[in-house]
Amino acid sequence: MSPSSVPYANGDHANDTNGNNPHRGTILVTGGAGFIGSHTVLELLNKGFEVVVVDNCINAYKADADLPECLKRVQELTGKIVTFYLVDLRDLEKTREIFSKHSFLCVIHFAGLKAVNESVQFPLMYYQHNLIGSMNILQCMVEFKINDMIFSSSATVYGSPHFLPLTESHPVGDCTNAYGKSKYFIEQFLQDHCAANPHVNAVVLRYFNPIGAHESGRLGEDPAGIPNNLMPYVAQVASGKLSQLSVFGNDYETRDGTGVRDYIHVVDLALGHTAALEKMLEGSLSGLKTYNLGTGKGHSVLEMVAAMKKASGVDIPYVIKARRGGDVGEVYADCTLAATDLNWHATRDLETMCRDLWNWQSQNKTGFQPS
Amino acid sequence: MSPSSVPYANGDHANDTNGNNPHRGTILVTGGAGFIGSHTVLELLNKGFEVVVVDNCINAYKADADLPECLKRVQELTGKIVTFYLVDLRDLEKTREIFSKHSFLCVIHFAGLKAVNESVQFPLMYYQHNLIGSMNILQCMVEFKINDMIFSSSATVYGSPHFLPLTESHPVGDCTNAYGKSKYFIEQFLQDHCAANPHVNAVVLRYFNPIGAHESGRLGEDPAGIPNNLMPYVAQVASGKLSQLSVFGNDYETRDGTGVRDYIHVVDLALGHTAALEKMLEGSLSGLKTYNLGTGKGHSVLEMVAAMKKASGVDIPYVIKARRGGDVGEVYADCTLAATDLNWHATRDLETMCRDLWNWQSQNKTGFQPS
Repeated sequence: MSPSSVPYANGDHANDTNGNNPHRGTILVTGGAGFIGSHTVLELLNKGFEVVVVDNCINAYKADADLPECLKRVQELTGKIVTFYLVDLRDLEKTREIFSKHSFLCVIHFAGLKAVNESVQFPLMYYQHNLIGSMNILQCMVEFKINDMIFSSSATVYGSPHFLPLTESHPVGDCTNAYGKSKYFIEQFLQDHCAANPHVNAVVLRYFNPIGAHESGRLGEDPAGIPNNLMPYVAQVASGKLSQLSVFGNDYETRDGTGVRDYIHVVDLALGHTAALEKMLEGSLSGLKTYNLGTGKGHSVLEMVAAMKKASGVDIPYVIKARRGGDVGEVYADCTLAATDLNWHATRDLETMCRDLWNWQSQNKTGFQPS
Repeated sequence: MSPSSVPYANGDHANDTNGNNPHRGTILVTGGAGFIGSHTVLELLNKGFEVVVVDNCINAYKADADLPECLKRVQELTGKIVTFYLVDLRDLEKTREIFSKHSFLCVIHFAGLKAVNESVQFPLMYYQHNLIGSMNILQCMVEFKINDMIFSSSATVYGSPHFLPLTESHPVGDCTNAYGKSKYFIEQFLQDHCAANPHVNAVVLRYFNPIGAHESGRLGEDPAGIPNNLMPYVAQVASGKLSQLSVFGNDYETRDGTGVRDYIHVVDLALGHTAALEKMLEGSLSGLKTYNLGTGKGHSVLEMVAAMKKASGVDIPYVIKARRGGDVGEVYADCTLAATDLNWHATRDLETMCRDLWNWQSQNKTGFQPS
């Protein structure tokens, strides 16, 4: 197994905000060819880290034996190289081989299956991918004495909110699907593993609803098939790929009756990871730390549709349908703790999220695949 | 990989209660060389099932390349053979090979690490053994179209009781250690897997505190090192192997201040499995079913000490110490559901439990190992 990597592209390094400190060490990014992963890889490179990505590319387009398309674009945008391994983390032996070839400062662990509905249909597959992958990463970290991890969790671990905004101390674990449960179980692995091993540090980041795209329009979300999430769906309606949006429920106790969520720009989310990494490497986070990453603001479905209409200049037809089982009216984060501990907060507003999403969608009608 | 098995021993088949129906099909028993597993294997053989055991023998004494000692004794006691594979369930390939060689009616899944304290020290190891092992078993069941499983869970999934007696509908999941969490997580795997696959049936058996031994004195609990559980410890004090018992807390709100638990004879527990199996094979249990297996009666530590003193005729010195963190005062089961659905209830009383434990302990001072 040799890594697929391409030499330095002829970039101008304009994005290298730490140009005078170019080799700060190597970060392993699992699932780095995914939506949030690829945006985080870009920010890590911009900050002078070297990045090794491992991804099984189940959900990432890859034209040839080389890099997934999104990572080619990350290289173009940054003028840096990414070392890439096409490996499934359920394979402990191959995962171990990657660890044997590099010396990682930290692991940022994104890899996992992530479609809620699919997880209801195929729970065993979800548990196998997400839990075995995570255990294998932890096993390799133990063997190779890598003590710092950042884990990609989700606000879904909170289940139906008992109070709003959601703080990190809100009860967790009451999830109704294997996706959410798998995130909760991995949080428990990390909690117990950190408690038993005082030299191990883990940052759990609970994401709210990441949308948007890189401002270049070269990097964005590329869902396979019909999108499961609202905004990729809305974007495909705006671009004419889908005919109309279904809005599930307009009788919630919210300002316009439609569901309210805390949408966060994917670049803000990526910067949440680099903020956590910097604090971790400084040594100012120890043991298990958990942070919400959101904006703290809720937007309704109809507000999102209106914002996307404004950004795209295109009408977005929709029909109101019945509520879906398991959906709740309103979810948004309290992000005070991340502001305090990580010196991070989301800065990109709804207009920017929609502008960047539309920019990506209109330039890449078929996602990362050639049309 | 060839199974280690020995031919029919020259038994008199006295225990074969279904002698006229000797080949009822084959049951896979994972962890069949453990305390509860081995007693269940014996009852399965007595009822005319063929049994294949897979065990990694981490906690089972094995003198040679052949069978673990406890299974040799099961063969002697029943006059039947056991097919045995020395395989660790974390190895999917080897587990799959076992499934490819037999056609199982049902899997009874005992295999797993089980020491609470050890799980606090080594949580990752506990999650790896218990969760990966269980996922691999489920994966093989899917591949080989085996639809029935009985799973060895624990009352520990209830956490600290909100009410007593504990019914199966008591909240679960609030566990403080990786052992308990692993049992809860596997219950969740089974719940989701059954919900997604209507042809799959799983019976979750939540054990209270199994003690005692087979009445022959040939089969019993053989803990490695200093016992973690009360009664094996008490038995070793009675036999002179340990000098005195520590009683943790005499200020609980119980009749004598010491902790109260629901102790169940291991043979009753084993018969709970065969009762569940019979109902499952009849087709009268479908989807996921969960049952408490206990007696419904609580006994305090001091009552257990007194009962063991009576059974052994030996004084059992003890000292009172402070409560241990995480312990609760009183735990006992409501076993109505198992009585109703499985037509099962525990019939062996405390005197019998202690008599059989003492019989085992005094005849096997070094457990299954030659002294």
